[in-house]
Amino acid sequence: VICAGFGHGLSLLAPVLRDAGAGTVAMEDPCLPVHRTLIAGHGLAVAPLPVDDAGARTDRLDAIGAGAVIVTPAHQYPTGVTLQPGRRAALVVWARREGACVIEDDYDGEFRFDRQPVGAVQGLAPDQVVYAGTVSKTLAPGVRLGWLVLPPRLVDPVVAMNGMARGGWTPPVLEQLTLAELIVTGRFDAHLRRLRAAYRARRDTLLAALADLPGARPRGIAAGLHLLVLLPRRATTEAGIRARAEARGIALAYLGPHRHRRGDHRPGVVIGFARPPASRFDRSVREAVDVLRSALAGQPAQLP
Amino acid sequence: VICAGFGHGLSLLAPVLRDAGAGTVAMEDPCLPVHRTLIAGHGLAVAPLPVDDAGARTDRLDAIGAGAVIVTPAHQYPTGVTLQPGRRAALVVWARREGACVIEDDYDGEFRFDRQPVGAVQGLAPDQVVYAGTVSKTLAPGVRLGWLVLPPRLVDPVVAMNGMARGGWTPPVLEQLTLAELIVTGRFDAHLRRLRAAYRARRDTLLAALADLPGARPRGIAAGLHLLVLLPRRATTEAGIRARAEARGIALAYLGPHRHRRGDHRPGVVIGFARPPASRFDRSVREAVDVLRSALAGQPAQLP
Repeated sequence: VICAGFGHGLSLLAPVLRDAGAGTVAMEDPCLPVHRTLIAGHGLAVAPLPVDDAGARTDRLDAIGAGAVIVTPAHQYPTGVTLQPGRRAALVVWARREGACVIEDDYDGEFRFDRQPVGAVQGLAPDQVVYAGTVSKTLAPGVRLGWLVLPPRLVDPVVAMNGMARGGWTPPVLEQLTLAELIVTGRFDAHLRRLRAAYRARRDTLLAALADLPGARPRGIAAGLHLLVLLPRRATTEAGIRARAEARGIALAYLGPHRHRRGDHRPGVVIGFARPPASRFDRSVREAVDVLRSALAGQPAQLP
Repeated sequence: VICAGFGHGLSLLAPVLRDAGAGTVAMEDPCLPVHRTLIAGHGLAVAPLPVDDAGARTDRLDAIGAGAVIVTPAHQYPTGVTLQPGRRAALVVWARREGACVIEDDYDGEFRFDRQPVGAVQGLAPDQVVYAGTVSKTLAPGVRLGWLVLPPRLVDPVVAMNGMARGGWTPPVLEQLTLAELIVTGRFDAHLRRLRAAYRARRDTLLAALADLPGARPRGIAAGLHLLVLLPRRATTEAGIRARAEARGIALAYLGPHRHRRGDHRPGVVIGFARPPASRFDRSVREAVDVLRSALAGQPAQLP
């Protein structure tokens, strides 16, 4: 099924899962708050599934008793962790045993820097896993083009959901034909290789700048277009960093809002490195690192 | 609000109207079955609003007790009738008195051939009327671009519906920027004038061919990209015409399925004249009229 991005795909899946009796959906903790709101808005309960250094804690799924789980195995958002092979196997075993649905958001799967590409979980169990991909990171979010690869039993209900409730919504044909042409001619692959090299260089620049910052621990650096910087718990707060960043006109994201429940946790800053134009990328990195340094030093926020 | 076409816009409005307590939606009889299915699928009751030679029977609205009504005032589908001024005024009076919502599908409003353009009902009562337009007839359905002009009180709920339930669905930016450029530069207007002349010539060709057909009464010819041919009740049936048309590979639409309830009625054939390429338009018209002639003569269906 062709959709307009992951959120739109999720809005087609959610009512189908609810009607199939899913009841509770396990979602990674931390994850994007807007996705939790969407799932809850369709009358499903959201249960937090903790994430550690090996990815989502699949051993917790049994206790949660969810009918579906949403995961980002390639590059967890926002922690950047890759789901480890043992966890992938456990996820599939759980889904098969419970007849549950795994929704695999292949977030940043195209931009892996340091290792061979990691396969999709969907390949391990196509009857249990929904694979969701988009061109939002590889072409542009404004293209609004994504796809769901569905287990056979979900195809008809999701197509019907898109037709009936959505008024026969289908994405424009121009974008679809253009992407098909790019893929068939091999130019999409060439584009990805070019981007991957450029983003890897950006990541290396950012990592080098962060290396000078005492106490900052970059995470999730093996793939993707962002990394998470964990900071010493007593040195600063996310609110303190945000105040300094906003005073300098710098947009960063923060770990806190991604957690299902607020509470005491290590401050974390999500730094995306895809957006600044090449001509001012080095300056953007310097400014972001300056913000962190100033927050760690407890210096007051000030305009530049 | 920008949407992906009338059906998609309706799928945003339906739950908002339902949540606001609309209960029953009056819909023209005949009208597109897919729209009735969509409204009913959102838990609203559908009540038939008869259409006569002056358009929708607005005098019936009081008896129906609907919270909303969907109308095609410019060129009713499928009858092609234009809603007369007295009915337009009555529609607005009813909506104001009942606090009801009028959804104006400006179907074919751009292609008026024989008179000055008819204004939108929305202009008479912007606080009660939702105006819905698309480029599906003026550019192409595959562009998937439409818009809703909403009464102020509906803006926030519809935007929220699009954001929450639809996963932040927005149409691609490329189509929006392209249309804006076409409008600003005046090229969209020039395009409409060119199309209008071409479609008027096509309509005249079709009417001339139908003039030779005894008993055929073309309706709804003042605007749009289709006309309705009413046929003598005892001479033939829609099923008989359909069998002959399909045997010759000709796609026509029929009055019957557009009626809310099946039953005895005059056979009617909807002939669209926008689709055939110019090079074979005359042949297409000849073939369609041959099908009607053969059905009226009671000749058996046969392959060409």
